[in-house]
Order: sequence, then structure tokens, then C-alpha cells
Amino acid sequence: MAHSLQVTMWNEYRHEQTNAAVAAIYPHGIHATIAQHLRGTGLAVHTATLDEPEHGLTPQVLAQSDVLIWWGHAAHEQVRDEVVERVHQRVLDGMGLIVLHSGHFSKIFKRLMGTTCDLKWREMGEKERIWVVEPGHPIAEGLGEFFEIPQAEMYGERFDIPAPDTLVFVSWFQGGEVFRSGCCYHRGKGKVFYFRPGHETYPIFHQAEVLRVITNAVHWAAPTTGPELRFGQHPDPLEQIRSAE
Amino acid sequence: MAHSLQVTMWNEYRHEQTNAAVAAIYPHGIHATIAQHLRGTGLAVHTATLDEPEHGLTPQVLAQSDVLIWWGHAAHEQVRDEVVERVHQRVLDGMGLIVLHSGHFSKIFKRLMGTTCDLKWREMGEKERIWVVEPGHPIAEGLGEFFEIPQAEMYGERFDIPAPDTLVFVSWFQGGEVFRSGCCYHRGKGKVFYFRPGHETYPIFHQAEVLRVITNAVHWAAPTTGPELRFGQHPDPLEQIRSAE
Amino acid sequence: MAHSLQVTMWNEYRHEQTNAAVAAIYPHGIHATIAQHLRGTGLAVHTATLDEPEHGLTPQVLAQSDVLIWWGHAAHEQVRDEVVERVHQRVLDGMGLIVLHSGHFSKIFKRLMGTTCDLKWREMGEKERIWVVEPGHPIAEGLGEFFEIPQAEMYGERFDIPAPDTLVFVSWFQGGEVFRSGCCYHRGKGKVFYFRPGHETYPIFHQAEVLRVITNAVHWAAPTTGPELRFGQHPDPLEQIRSAE
Amino acid sequence: MAHSLQVTMWNEYRHEQTNAAVAAIYPHGIHATIAQHLRGTGLAVHTATLDEPEHGLTPQVLAQSDVLIWWGHAAHEQVRDEVVERVHQRVLDGMGLIVLHSGHFSKIFKRLMGTTCDLKWREMGEKERIWVVEPGHPIAEGLGEFFEIPQAEMYGERFDIPAPDTLVFVSWFQGGEVFRSGCCYHRGKGKVFYFRPGHETYPIFHQAEVLRVITNAVHWAAPTTGPELRFGQHPDPLEQIRSAE
Repeated sequence: MAHSLQVTMWNEYRHEQTNAAVAAIYPHGIHATIAQHLRGTGLAVHTATLDEPEHGLTPQVLAQSDVLIWWGHAAHEQVRDEVVERVHQRVLDGMGLIVLHSGHFSKIFKRLMGTTCDLKWREMGEKERIWVVEPGHPIAEGLGEFFEIPQAEMYGERFDIPAPDTLVFVSWFQGGEVFRSGCCYHRGKGKVFYFRPGHETYPIFHQAEVLRVITNAVHWAAPTTGPELRFGQHPDPLEQIRSAE
Repeated sequence: MAHSLQVTMWNEYRHEQTNAAVAAIYPHGIHATIAQHLRGTGLAVHTATLDEPEHGLTPQVLAQSDVLIWWGHAAHEQVRDEVVERVHQRVLDGMGLIVLHSGHFSKIFKRLMGTTCDLKWREMGEKERIWVVEPGHPIAEGLGEFFEIPQAEMYGERFDIPAPDTLVFVSWFQGGEVFRSGCCYHRGKGKVFYFRPGHETYPIFHQAEVLRVITNAVHWAAPTTGPELRFGQHPDPLEQIRSAE
Repeated sequence: MAHSLQVTMWNEYRHEQTNAAVAAIYPHGIHATIAQHLRGTGLAVHTATLDEPEHGLTPQVLAQSDVLIWWGHAAHEQVRDEVVERVHQRVLDGMGLIVLHSGHFSKIFKRLMGTTCDLKWREMGEKERIWVVEPGHPIAEGLGEFFEIPQAEMYGERFDIPAPDTLVFVSWFQGGEVFRSGCCYHRGKGKVFYFRPGHETYPIFHQAEVLRVITNAVHWAAPTTGPELRFGQHPDPLEQIRSAE
Repeated sequence: MAHSLQVTMWNEYRHEQTNAAVAAIYPHGIHATIAQHLRGTGLAVHTATLDEPEHGLTPQVLAQSDVLIWWGHAAHEQVRDEVVERVHQRVLDGMGLIVLHSGHFSKIFKRLMGTTCDLKWREMGEKERIWVVEPGHPIAEGLGEFFEIPQAEMYGERFDIPAPDTLVFVSWFQGGEVFRSGCCYHRGKGKVFYFRPGHETYPIFHQAEVLRVITNAVHWAAPTTGPELRFGQHPDPLEQIRSAE
């Protein structure tokens, strides 16, 4: 069924246009790099960026998206609140959401988590090791016990999130910190995955293991045709029960 | 240490002043009934209501509150957003929060959960049985395997909340529904407990088991002197590590 | 990939041969009824029963099984301990396990849970309603908000299990009880699903919703190619780190 | 209520009698060191060791124990199965259990977890940092964001346990590994806490933070007077319901 999944890859897409170092690594944007990889696995991928009308996230685009991947960093506050609410509602209705790295501070992730989503960070290109702690989870498919990112921005605990429904990865950093790096959540009918790695000045989104995890996460977060939910006042079923007795 | 806990009991306090049936059951307000009981167990209790300045929830009141209990129903939208943000921040800083019954739709609960918190409801005075599913949890202290509420408003699944960190109670309703009725969450440094029972036109907050659960929940949700959290840019610890090698 | 999944359907297969009422409902055994349905969805299904040599669960059979479904009731104690250990090890190595109804008291389920797995029961043919509480979970695919079993054996809380990693279903019974009816667990690299419905004297395993859930659970519990785990003494990686500095 | 808690501190107590290096650090045994500290906080502490009759864990001792602390390492197999079953039953009945360090491989912990509880280890005296990831949990009371153990035996993931109900600590090791170091579980009516630090050849059980965590865990794991559980055949409540209608 994988061939029919529709992914929307959203990118703030500012760093790549203003910073030569970033542009050297992601000449067409982080979104283009990830989209190209996902397409190579058979997924249908649409891209959207902050500076498009409605940030490229119109009701039509969202209605057709099975999974939305989110990368933002410097312009979280420029994402309009009505678009955030639209994405929020669509996640609760079943669309998967994958939040990458600095997206921890995006409006949509904070809206879904209900906490500050704050953390520690340090940028000195230290080594990161990402350990699999739930090896039977489909997001760990195809990985070894750990993989390394040679140069990473450190993110450290306390990561102010709700405890994940399932914790898949924990990161080790050379400088002495740990981090819950792969966090799965059910929210409404949607599934949310936060994945720590990724930075605009390191070629992390070219790394095979990182792309593998994102691909796995798309499949895990894909919508299912679950029950149609009804809320509000509910009819009296007692007569039916009494008559059945 | 129980004697030093400071509880703030918040009530919308509108029904009791406009509806004779409600006033007959809670002549001084739901908050007064619960506060009286809690004081009888040795807790210090302050009350606050919607129509006080700042809804009675000034920074000073919140700073002195170990646990806040919330009951609201008809006027959720009249709670000002800046007060909601103040309470939210205080919960993340460690204050316990106990949300009762129709408080599921309060701004503060929705803010903390990140979901709609919607549910099914029906008001026909049917019987509810509240079953303990985690019998070693301190919130179940002193209870039997279940207790009954003779006449209750039904709340039914799907309850649109994140899966609780710990599920303590599940309700059975005569009409055919079930509900996750006692839900524990860690959010930031604070602890949140949602408790389903309670309605303005039934004497549920006079019932011993209900009052016992609220009292237990106050003790469970009380703040602890945990670590002082630091967020943001983090210094380089590598030199220390290298020098220690 | 569904076509390549290999399911082993295990049945105690005693009631069907000794009790005419059971034989009337499941003339070739509960295993045959479930197997036939699963084959119709494209799964490869092998069956095994208690009275076969090694209960039909030889190392070869288990090695080739992606998912094992377990139904037992009256003869749990006759399952040999070495076969239980073999199944246990295979689950930890990644095989999915689906435990049905009275299998809650099987040696393998108790071994994996670490608790008594005891519960309340009553057999009077009362109505059961199975509510979906996690509507985005793949095991709820294709269901409505609830489905009913017209005549069921009641199972009631307290169900003495570890809190499930994910709770998918909660049952309501006409007589006044509730039950956590669909419980997901990760254990080792394997996934375990306990599903409450099913009884030898009711045609529950002919019911479409029940068969749908079992089919969904097979796909959810299917093994993934996760990391090869190494345990025990671990080499010193410091030299590598030092040389990389 | 803390003054009435009765702790039983169990120790294999072999290393201290055969290894001079261990005896130098724990001259009266690890149990004596921990017991002395706990008594200083107002707890009543009884000690028991492997070579006493019934390993010092008679039915009477267990019946009087609110919380049992377990340290074992080299002689797990010498703990008799009937004593393990007795402890297991007592935990399900409500006694708290705190398992320290190499106790991960004890029969009682494996029995309660249902998995191998295996892990990676390395003994080279490297530095460990224990990070608090759930800062509002009572077991983190009085700690900073992390604490360090200057020389520790490394334990690394994959730690083959069920995902904890609450994850309180994650360890970082100098050599490149991480570990879920503070794991809370409900099992039956009992509460179980696994705590990683501690080794016979390092003075870890003299360290203030480690002793603080053990003390906190005793209070968290203390039994509550929850419901008396009834299992098995359950009477028919329908007549009562029908008569109430």
C-alpha cells in the first residue's frame, strides 16, 4: 500500500537562501533533499514552504496529505495561527506528523504537546550516538543497535515534553548529555513522531540512517481508517437494551 | 507533611447562584462543599471563583498554591487567556492540578492536553460504576474495587485526550458506555489528574468516595522539590571531561 | 508485504472434540475457523494443537512463524514448560503473539506479563460492547466506535496485568463490569496483543468485527528487521573516541 | 507517616566476605551501609542475606515488610525458587520492591518483568552522569538536573525490559552508551523501582545522591491501602440493576 501514501514535506526554507554554508549542503532546500529520498522509496511527495501563500498548507493540500513532515528553525513565529490550527485539526483527524530537530519549537508541536518543548542546546560539532531502545518498533526497522552522527548540534535533557507513548531512540552526546530522540505519540486519530537529528549546517539529512528513520516514520504515522468519532450529546440506548432483555 | 499543603479550590460559581436546584445541593457553591471536606482532612484550602478580579487567580495566589482544583462548566470562554497562561506556567513549574468533570472542556485542561478533550454525554440520571484498574496507585487509597454513583451524567468514549501516564479508574454506565475516569499526567514539573464524577444537579460532591479520591489526588499531585531546570544554550563540558581523563 | 506473513494458529482443541455444543459452532475447531478467515485475507496460516507432538510448536515451526495466535482454556497446565520457554524466547526474538480470551491464563501469557493475569468472570450470555479508545491505532482499522457481542462470557476488572503500552479497547458488560479488552505490549523485539472476546460456546469467532481485529493484530504484530541485539561484556570504545578527537 | 514504614534490605552478602577490596568499602556489607542511611532518615530497617535460613525472607519477614530492597550479583541462581515465588506474591499483594544495579539479573526481577533483563556492561571505571528526565516525579526529589558517579561500571542499552510506566533517569557513560537507569512499574498492587547505580568495588552506596534516590524510592514504593481484589467467578448483578430500574 506504500505507493499510495501522500507525504507533504514542509520547510521553513530561509537558511538555504541566505546562508552560503547551508546552501552548499542543501542547494535546493532541506525539503528537496528529503523529498528526493522519499520519492526514491516509492512515496508520493509534495513540498511546501513558509513563504508560499498560506505557507503552502491550504485546506486542500492538508486534506490530501497522509503525513506531514515539518522542519523549521528561525521563523516559527511567522507561521500564522490559523494555519497552525488547521494543521492541528488535521492531525487530530488522522494525518501523521513528523517533526524534525529544531521543529521542537514550532507552534504546531507545542500546540500538540501542551508543554514548552524547551531543551538544552550547544553547537560545537560534537559526536552523537543514537541508540535504539525499542528494537521491535517499526521505526527502528533496518537499523543497527545505534548509529552515529559525526558532527551534531547537541540537544540535552530536560526535554520538556509529555512522556512519549513509545520511546524509540535515546541519544548520547560526546559532551555529556542524553536526549529522548525518537518519541511516538497518539493525538486524536493522528500519530506524531518527533525525531531529533538534523541541522542546517551539517549534512545530516544526507545520512542514510536518518533518511531511513524518516521513511520508516512516514509508514508508521500513516492514517488508518479507524472509527468515525461522534462527540456531544448522545442518544439514550436504554430502550434498546430493555427491549433486548 | 500533609498539614502544610495549600490547596486552591476554583469554581466557576454561576449555576449555584442562578439555578435553585443547584443551590439546594450546593448552597455555598461546589467550591465550599469540597473545601470544607478538604479542611477536615487537615489541608489548608483557599477558594477562588470566576467573578473575582483575575478570577481569584493572581500571581500571588498561584505562587502559594501547591495544588489547584478546577470546576467549570458553562463559562469556560469567560476565563481570560492571560490567566490561563499563568496557570499553565505554574503547572509546568510544579503546581498540581485536579480537573473535575465538566472541567474537561476548560481552557487550561485543553491547553495542557493539546487535544479537543471532547466526549459523549447524556443526562438522564443513570447509574455509574467507577472501577479501580490500578489498585496500587495512591489515588485509589481507601476505596473498594468499585464505587457507584446512583445518578450521574454519562460521559462516554471516545474521550479525546492523550493516553494517560497512568489510568486509575474506568467508568461503566447503565446505558452502555465506558469512560477513562481517572487519568494521571506529568506535564512539566507538575502533575495533572482528571477525575470524571461530579455534576451540578446531583449531590456527587457530597459522596464519601468522591471526596476521598479528590483528597488522595491532592496528596499525589503535591509538588516535589525536584531539580531546577535550565533550558537554552548550554556550556561546553568537554574541557572538564578531557582534564579528568 | 502482507502476502508473505506466516501465521501459526494454535488451539488447545479439546472442547470441540468432547462437547457437542462447541462442536456445533466450531466443527473443525476454533483454529480452523480463524485460519480459514485469515487465509481469505491473503495470509499464510499453519495450525497447531495441544495433542500434536511438542504441541505442534517445534523449533522449526516457530522459526517460520511471524505471528502466533493462542487459544487455550481447560488444559493450560498440560502445555509443557520447555515449549513455553521456546515460545517465550521466540517472542523476545521478534515473533508476534496474539492471545485470545481464556488464553489470559496460559503459561506463555503469564510468563510474558510477570503477573497472575487473573480476572473476574461470569457466564450468563450477557451483552458486551467493545469500545475503541485509541481510534488511530492500526488494530482499530475498519471498525466503528464500538461493536457488540450479543452473548458473551463476562470478564471484569481488576485484570491483573501490567498497564499496556497501548490500550486500544475497553469492554462494557450488561451486568455492570468493564474490562481492558485490547492491550498492546512490546516484549523484547516481539509485540504481544491480548484480545478479550471469544468463547467456545458462543459463535464469537464467526463475527466479522472480531475476525477483523485479529487480522489487524497480525499485521501490527508482524516482526520488523530491527537491530541485532548484543548483550554481555562490551568492548572499550574510548580509544576510538580519543583517536577521533 | 514515614516513621512507620518497615524496610527490608536484602543483600547477597558474598563479595564483602571474600574480596578484600569490597570489604574495604563495605566492611559490614552493602546492606549495612544502606540500612544505616535509611535509619538515619527515620525508617525502620531490617536486613536479610542469602546465607540465612530461607535467605532471611520468611513469610513473617515479608508480611511485615512495606518495601524490600534487593542487591545480588554472583549468586542469583542460589536464591531458591520458592522464596522467589513468595516475594513475587508479596509484591503483587502490595509490597514495594527496589532492585539495585546487578539485581537486574535476579530471579525476582526477571520474574516480574517477563523478559531477559539483559544488558551490555563494561568495567573500566568510567564516568557516569545520571540525568533526570521526569523532574516532577517524587523519586527525583532533592536532586539537581543530573548527578555524576566518578567511577562506574557501564550498563548500556538495549536493556531488555518492558518500557517502564515512568522513566525517571537516563544515564550517560563516558564510553558512548546510554541506559534507562530509573524505571518505575506497577505490578499487581505493588510498585517496583529499578535503579542502576551501585557496584561492589566502587563506593557508590556511600554517595549522597544515590542514597537520596533509594530513600525517595522507598517512600514512593510504600504500599497503599487500596481495594481488596476478588478474582474468579463473579455473581450476577443484573437482578439488582433490573430491580433498580
